[in-house]
Amino acid sequence: MKRIYLDRIAATPVHPDVLEAMLPFFRERFGNAQSLHTDGQTVQDAVAEARENVARLINAAPEEIYFVSCGSEANNLALKGLALAAKPKGGHLVLSAVEHHSVLNAAKSLERAGFASTIVPVDAQAKVDPAAAADAVRPETVLVSIQSANSEVGTIQPLAEIARLLKARGVIVHTDAVAAVGSIPVDVRALGVDALSLAGDQLGGPKGSGALFVRKGVKLQAQIDGGVQENGKRGGTENVPAIVGLGQAAEIARTGMEARRQAMTILRDKLIEGLPARIPHVFLTGARADRLPHHASFAVRFVEGESMLLSLDMKGIAASSGSACTSKSLKASHVQLAMGLDHAAANGSIVFSLLDDATAADIDYLLDVFPPIIDRLRKMSPLYTEFLKENAR
Amino acid sequence: MKRIYLDRIAATPVHPDVLEAMLPFFRERFGNAQSLHTDGQTVQDAVAEARENVARLINAAPEEIYFVSCGSEANNLALKGLALAAKPKGGHLVLSAVEHHSVLNAAKSLERAGFASTIVPVDAQAKVDPAAAADAVRPETVLVSIQSANSEVGTIQPLAEIARLLKARGVIVHTDAVAAVGSIPVDVRALGVDALSLAGDQLGGPKGSGALFVRKGVKLQAQIDGGVQENGKRGGTENVPAIVGLGQAAEIARTGMEARRQAMTILRDKLIEGLPARIPHVFLTGARADRLPHHASFAVRFVEGESMLLSLDMKGIAASSGSACTSKSLKASHVQLAMGLDHAAANGSIVFSLLDDATAADIDYLLDVFPPIIDRLRKMSPLYTEFLKENAR
Repeated sequence: MKRIYLDRIAATPVHPDVLEAMLPFFRERFGNAQSLHTDGQTVQDAVAEARENVARLINAAPEEIYFVSCGSEANNLALKGLALAAKPKGGHLVLSAVEHHSVLNAAKSLERAGFASTIVPVDAQAKVDPAAAADAVRPETVLVSIQSANSEVGTIQPLAEIARLLKARGVIVHTDAVAAVGSIPVDVRALGVDALSLAGDQLGGPKGSGALFVRKGVKLQAQIDGGVQENGKRGGTENVPAIVGLGQAAEIARTGMEARRQAMTILRDKLIEGLPARIPHVFLTGARADRLPHHASFAVRFVEGESMLLSLDMKGIAASSGSACTSKSLKASHVQLAMGLDHAAANGSIVFSLLDDATAADIDYLLDVFPPIIDRLRKMSPLYTEFLKENAR
Repeated sequence: MKRIYLDRIAATPVHPDVLEAMLPFFRERFGNAQSLHTDGQTVQDAVAEARENVARLINAAPEEIYFVSCGSEANNLALKGLALAAKPKGGHLVLSAVEHHSVLNAAKSLERAGFASTIVPVDAQAKVDPAAAADAVRPETVLVSIQSANSEVGTIQPLAEIARLLKARGVIVHTDAVAAVGSIPVDVRALGVDALSLAGDQLGGPKGSGALFVRKGVKLQAQIDGGVQENGKRGGTENVPAIVGLGQAAEIARTGMEARRQAMTILRDKLIEGLPARIPHVFLTGARADRLPHHASFAVRFVEGESMLLSLDMKGIAASSGSACTSKSLKASHVQLAMGLDHAAANGSIVFSLLDDATAADIDYLLDVFPPIIDRLRKMSPLYTEFLKENAR
């Protein structure tokens, strides 16, 4: 059976050109980028080029890019590294309620170290109100972290507007852009952010790659202490193959992004319109307009997310019920609760997220096989039986 | 010109079998190990197998292994994660003076968070005296971190004896075994340590791979907060290719280690005996007997380390002056100073470290080309001219 992978938010395959770019650095060019000899020097150039490519993708300067091992590390370095460096100015953070666990839990760690944080709520589409974010700022606020887009429900935040209001308050603005970079244009200057996290495995780059942008002049405290690597802000031998792969992926993502975005949007909309038309009691979660082009998330009433995932898997379709970081637990996610989804709807959440090479045939197949799956699952659902009874009255 | 790579302490090439094991996980088996669908499940098995292989190499249980992104991260997670989790019991650490920067600087970070630390000195061979380590323990000491072996001067520490004395004092014992694992037998039970760091790029595994062993029952606080990965102790999407590569490298390192160790020791000793015999004013640094089998480090008087490295590089030989993390700065290292090496000798430090496939011909070539290099460099050295004048009197 052909497998159709509709779980981009969990992982992307490494682009063939990315793998090709990485391969020489495992055995031939394996030197340590810090070594003085030729084996080291030849590797340094490759790291520098990758840094330029990543910087170009988000309109940053190369020296503003710090390579790390993943998006979660980037978020941890941002939250802790920026907040701890700014500690003399104050000990208060502002986050949105729909941030990734790596942001929320890094903030909790900071709370153990004496920081306080304010969580800004979101509306029913998971959107942050810029005015609410600005209002959460106190005199002692040093850092605000608001995501660029939400990976569970696809909503793109009004980040430029948020950053504009926040900058007037003199705080550092970080954005977790892991879900956005590579899919939509992300320009750190146009957005007006001071720091931004990105991850390779969301843009056709390798797992184990990521970067944190920190605007020149903004203080950052290393979180993995060690040697002189990454300008002293991230110790550890440079993971050269991963860095080279991330650079190549950034370059591929940058070129032709608009064409891919348009093609993907058409497929996404086919799904967003087609699924509720074929299955009753299904609705889109997250924003309709300001939405990631690869992302269609739904709440399916009277069905459990896990049952849907496993049934789809048997039909060759890989999908997700939300964040991969918690997918095994399958309780209502903090994002769904923050949006005000009731538990019943949240339990039936499902996310289809498209890779760059997704086709209309993939969507057609999904639209074919999914309704009978839901039909079968609902027949086994006591909740649905009860609902039908009540409606029959 | 054939290149001879004698800088294992900086990096090892990925073993061909390791790369082969990794390759399917970039594109075919690219799923997220946390996903419920087939693409995720098939990857989980590979991660579990790698965990078993790494555990087997050091005689740990699989559930005691936490995958991280490098040796420096392992050391940071150990120092901070163990110390912060034990904070209620006390706020004092003990380290040796010759620890890696990732250990020393992690301890400095902890000092900013309210911890105090005691640095145990070493002898002229960089060895820690077990009694001195035990004597440094105070009632409020929670963690002691003493390396297994030193990567700059090759000395193997009397770790089992150190751990035995320390365990009697009721403290947690961590060892940075990055320089040792893969080259010499390392058994966490026999050593009696509670935590141990290792890195893939020191044993033919990929850069960007590493692991921390933490004995069951010992509390660890995550340092990269995030999702449920690594039992909640290390957030971030699992870097499956790197994990699989590390597992394969561990398996290769485990099998046939003794034969490789013996072969390498012969080559090492050829160098340790041959070099001082051919070049005056050269002496071995670090221990002679308790020494890593791949490691020969020297102090060459009246010559600068950088000049030696660059001259050797022109002859096709890659070597190191010490830690790759500071190799660009080339000042006397903290290890050399702790051993009591004077600055003049420390400046002329050079490390030759052998890969598994090093040959007698490599050593012969080095023994041929190195003496004339030193001869030439010394002729340009004012210090050497002065020394000759004084000796002529």
